[in-house]
Amino acid sequence: MNVNFAERAHNHNWKLDPIVRSLLDTDFYKLLMLQFIWKNFPKIHVTSEVTNRTVSVRLSEHIPIAMLVDQMEHVRGLRFRRSEIIWLAGNTFYGTRSIFEPAFLEWLERDFRLSDYTVTEHDGQIVVRFEGLWTEVTMWEVYGLALVSEMKTRAALSTLSELELDVLYAQAKTKLWEKMERLREVPEIRISEFGTRRRHSFLWQEYVVEVMRMALGPSLSGTSNTFLAYKHDLEAMGTNAHELPMAMAALANDDEELHASQYRVLELWQKSYGGELLIMLPDTFGTTQFLAGAPDWVADWTGQRCDSKDPFVAGDEYVAWLTERGRDAKKKRLIASDGLDVEDILRLHEYFHGRIRFSAGWGTLLTNDFRGCHPRGETALEPISLVCKLMTVGGRPAVKLSDNARKSTGPVEEIARYRRVFGSVAVMGALVTV
Amino acid sequence: MNVNFAERAHNHNWKLDPIVRSLLDTDFYKLLMLQFIWKNFPKIHVTSEVTNRTVSVRLSEHIPIAMLVDQMEHVRGLRFRRSEIIWLAGNTFYGTRSIFEPAFLEWLERDFRLSDYTVTEHDGQIVVRFEGLWTEVTMWEVYGLALVSEMKTRAALSTLSELELDVLYAQAKTKLWEKMERLREVPEIRISEFGTRRRHSFLWQEYVVEVMRMALGPSLSGTSNTFLAYKHDLEAMGTNAHELPMAMAALANDDEELHASQYRVLELWQKSYGGELLIMLPDTFGTTQFLAGAPDWVADWTGQRCDSKDPFVAGDEYVAWLTERGRDAKKKRLIASDGLDVEDILRLHEYFHGRIRFSAGWGTLLTNDFRGCHPRGETALEPISLVCKLMTVGGRPAVKLSDNARKSTGPVEEIARYRRVFGSVAVMGALVTV
Repeated sequence: MNVNFAERAHNHNWKLDPIVRSLLDTDFYKLLMLQFIWKNFPKIHVTSEVTNRTVSVRLSEHIPIAMLVDQMEHVRGLRFRRSEIIWLAGNTFYGTRSIFEPAFLEWLERDFRLSDYTVTEHDGQIVVRFEGLWTEVTMWEVYGLALVSEMKTRAALSTLSELELDVLYAQAKTKLWEKMERLREVPEIRISEFGTRRRHSFLWQEYVVEVMRMALGPSLSGTSNTFLAYKHDLEAMGTNAHELPMAMAALANDDEELHASQYRVLELWQKSYGGELLIMLPDTFGTTQFLAGAPDWVADWTGQRCDSKDPFVAGDEYVAWLTERGRDAKKKRLIASDGLDVEDILRLHEYFHGRIRFSAGWGTLLTNDFRGCHPRGETALEPISLVCKLMTVGGRPAVKLSDNARKSTGPVEEIARYRRVFGSVAVMGALVTV
Repeated sequence: MNVNFAERAHNHNWKLDPIVRSLLDTDFYKLLMLQFIWKNFPKIHVTSEVTNRTVSVRLSEHIPIAMLVDQMEHVRGLRFRRSEIIWLAGNTFYGTRSIFEPAFLEWLERDFRLSDYTVTEHDGQIVVRFEGLWTEVTMWEVYGLALVSEMKTRAALSTLSELELDVLYAQAKTKLWEKMERLREVPEIRISEFGTRRRHSFLWQEYVVEVMRMALGPSLSGTSNTFLAYKHDLEAMGTNAHELPMAMAALANDDEELHASQYRVLELWQKSYGGELLIMLPDTFGTTQFLAGAPDWVADWTGQRCDSKDPFVAGDEYVAWLTERGRDAKKKRLIASDGLDVEDILRLHEYFHGRIRFSAGWGTLLTNDFRGCHPRGETALEPISLVCKLMTVGGRPAVKLSDNARKSTGPVEEIARYRRVFGSVAVMGALVTV
């Protein structure tokens, strides 16, 4: 009777169901950083790499490389659309209009391209390497991670019947709703959706954001996903990442410049951005040494994001440091973003409430929490720890120490040199699950 | 892009979304009883009435009477389809072919009609009264109950947004799946779906049956819904209801005939049906007196369904009676069907396992368990206790005593007379919730 013949024919013939539908489908901070790189480092060459820290999951046994390449080529064929550029130009971000320069937007629309890449298999893992100008490589991070993450999802879903899929999603939705009901009890809580890179799928992330808006109202500060912010009139959230201090450290010519680079990046950043965008990420080479050695103007920044240290400890340390520097912690912002789930968010909110403006950046365990939802009890849909890290900058190795030694990256000898220069000690933090 | 214009246009124009889609969408026992009535009581006039025992829910404030009438007229316009009649003729029911006589099927296809009715409002309730030949009135029971039940559902759903509806169904599906996971732990368990009359909706009942088949495999004995049995190649389950002993009691001309009528109905039934269809329903006028006064041949029947007495007590009583009558209880069947949920089923199975062949007839709390699923915490989707009972037979009042005095029906003075004749005492059982 009521058959949509065109749709049926398309469904059994289509070549590609795209995972990344728009170049805006990335974290907002990538666009801020892209403008920063375009302006300050337009000629620097870098390499970066997608790897899976959850080595027990052998991705190459699930994801056909040819299909991943098809998806990557689809992304490489995308362009920023006119309406998207107009939105970036005309929208207010963190209360500021014209955060993107006209020349940058013109370049973004006309000249932006993604770098070349290679996809190889190694010891059961898929390794994706990007190489080119920093402006061409940087944007691959979120697209690449989201592609691998959703390819893994699709491989797992392909083993389920239609009814099993229905049960799977019903359970995941119920799990999400239970989290919303917990959070609704605390109306002052502030949460941003930060889960693009390791999401179950784009459509699931969109569903999650819509449910959050309905359930949480003003407790949802916004989403880091620029496309979802654009499509659903939400605030685009996020400022910057480890990529910047790592690159500036790699570009330093001696140990003294290396040590200074962690503050130099802040100086450069505040030439471009102000206000709520002045959120520092002090853990790249160890938070404690960063705060101890910071020039006084660093304490004027709006807040910090803690991404590897126990956020209770990191927050206390930040509040004490602000007090010591004569600043009022109550006017500063603390953002936790490392593997949070609903109970962490509730406890952190309660702990810091009234002492500092706390917000949660909720990622993987928001947009990819299918733990316990598989109708046959399998674990194939549980999230894994996918990362994309800078490997070299201007031909030199890139290093991150982090507050959790399990999250450090770079060649062993370089890590040792960095530890010497920054005087930070390796601390084994929590096991990295996501 | 991919718009099905015909579907969209239909969706915003349609006159009626039918609740009952086929005359087969009824409990299988209604068809067995219809053949019985057609054969033995073709001239008897009866009246029956749909009422809501959950008086706290004021149905007339939610269900527009005109819309209910539209749905009833739609059902009255339905005919048994050729393919349905062929299926009734050719299918095997309880291992028996040709359970329906050709003459009956011919009558069903050509002459079957539903009686006239009136719909009125009384004290916040909707009262639907049916009047006509017993063969015309009897089939209204399940259609009428299912219509009122789904109209109530639709009224409650109309207050929810699309996303809230999605959350509602996700939670209901999860709740259903959790029940399935509990039952899967006991592969020997046997369950029939008995939830047509008080279902959330037809489509939800169909979903439940499909999930049960996937999750439970052979533990799902079948469904009482004839249309679902036909559509999904399942066993059609069910035998007979209180309607028959109530009618034969009403037709009795004196107290002696009245007392004998409860066995007379079994005699008549076994002239038409055998084997697994010989399931008695001993609680119409009190189980204890029924068993005590039963002629010996009654103990040859295949089993009993307990529908108002505590099933642990009723089962023990039946096993003891069978033993006393020299029959092997292990070869008999015990069916519980009164307001069961998953825990009751598991406990009853464990209690009777190895002593008697136990099966659960799972109704309202299978096909309409939305308790706790409303995204705003409202109770509008919780099931209510809708019933459709014979009021008069051949102009005389119809009476049910039941093992639970809360479930007795009929005029007070008639109930008193029946209690005297049957010597059964009024026992207050559990509160009737569904």
